[in-house]
Amino acid sequence: MSKQFDAALNAIKEKVVNMGELAQEMIRTTMKSLVERDPALIPRVEELEDQVDRFQVEIDEDVIQLMAKFEPVASDLRFALMVARINTELERIGDQCTNMCESISLLLSEPELKELIDLPRMAELAASMVRDSLQAFAEGDTANARQVINSDSMVDALNDQLFKDLLGYMTRDASTATRALALLLIARSLERVADHATNVSEEVIYMVKGEDVRHQSVRVAAES
Amino acid sequence: MSKQFDAALNAIKEKVVNMGELAQEMIRTTMKSLVERDPALIPRVEELEDQVDRFQVEIDEDVIQLMAKFEPVASDLRFALMVARINTELERIGDQCTNMCESISLLLSEPELKELIDLPRMAELAASMVRDSLQAFAEGDTANARQVINSDSMVDALNDQLFKDLLGYMTRDASTATRALALLLIARSLERVADHATNVSEEVIYMVKGEDVRHQSVRVAAES
Repeated sequence: MSKQFDAALNAIKEKVVNMGELAQEMIRTTMKSLVERDPALIPRVEELEDQVDRFQVEIDEDVIQLMAKFEPVASDLRFALMVARINTELERIGDQCTNMCESISLLLSEPELKELIDLPRMAELAASMVRDSLQAFAEGDTANARQVINSDSMVDALNDQLFKDLLGYMTRDASTATRALALLLIARSLERVADHATNVSEEVIYMVKGEDVRHQSVRVAAES
Repeated sequence: MSKQFDAALNAIKEKVVNMGELAQEMIRTTMKSLVERDPALIPRVEELEDQVDRFQVEIDEDVIQLMAKFEPVASDLRFALMVARINTELERIGDQCTNMCESISLLLSEPELKELIDLPRMAELAASMVRDSLQAFAEGDTANARQVINSDSMVDALNDQLFKDLLGYMTRDASTATRALALLLIARSLERVADHATNVSEEVIYMVKGEDVRHQSVRVAAES
């Protein structure tokens, strides 16, 4: 492969990683707004979302131009498809942060319900999954990607626990309903963020190994 | 473009449309389970999801093979990227139906809360958006695609109204919390289904016109 092609490819990879860093900053800023009960941080999240959206449009065009300029072989096409999708996953992480900000606004209109022990833990876990999935992408490191996929069950377990706890609040005391619902929706969004990081990791494995780890149970069933 | 290429391209398009029909059947079956309070329909939704997942894996491979076999020009690459993404949107519609089935199980464990007037209406609207977005895809019909995008605000409005109504139940009477929450999550999933149909339509416009209608406000701001 030509040096020119490699350079263009690396430039795209770098843009994806930069986009991912913005997505991580969105998660951190959103959680800071929640923990410090500070609605003034929400406009910052919106600004970051605009930047993330702009990256998505740019990266798509870069990929199309790269592929059109050089004569891509099958593995390049796989790369192009995967970048276009990783791109979308990162953009959706941004969307989830925007959703969380809506719930935070709802939450801040009432006094604090309880300490937020589990939510910041979930957020930290989800953000580190995003970070690791992008490192796996940048380095083509499938071991790292698999670790991200394994972490997803921890986030799911935290979410299930929070769901039960918060539904418990609602069914015992109607005056907690708005806040409990808002917290439950935030937990659900964080669980989605972790899902997106998992999807990125699955794409990385597909890209590097040509192995499709999505819907593995279906494939095993089909092959057996 | 060769006849062979056209035939292969049409075969892929047909598969995408078939996958979309399965996704629509998932929505219908899920809503039937809700309206008729029949948990026996849920395994059927799961079966359909396996089929949808299998389609996703297959279509991806078909696209990569098509592109590797012929010498694709820029518009073919655009097509490949878009099919890979439309594919993912349809698979996520399936995921939403699975989520709804979880809420339905929760709901059916208690007596009926209220008549479900708005949810079936939302579901019908969302399912018709999926159908129309796929017709737009199959025929490259951007006018139809734009109509789908316009319908999204109706679904959003229905969702906002339901959110308020159901939160009202919860805050007035704690004994309704589980059911109101389950209905609220179902409404949210339907709103997501409509978002996915909107995304498919945006991809169609991008594919046909090379015009990126995603994040249009961002782009207008950037260009002005």
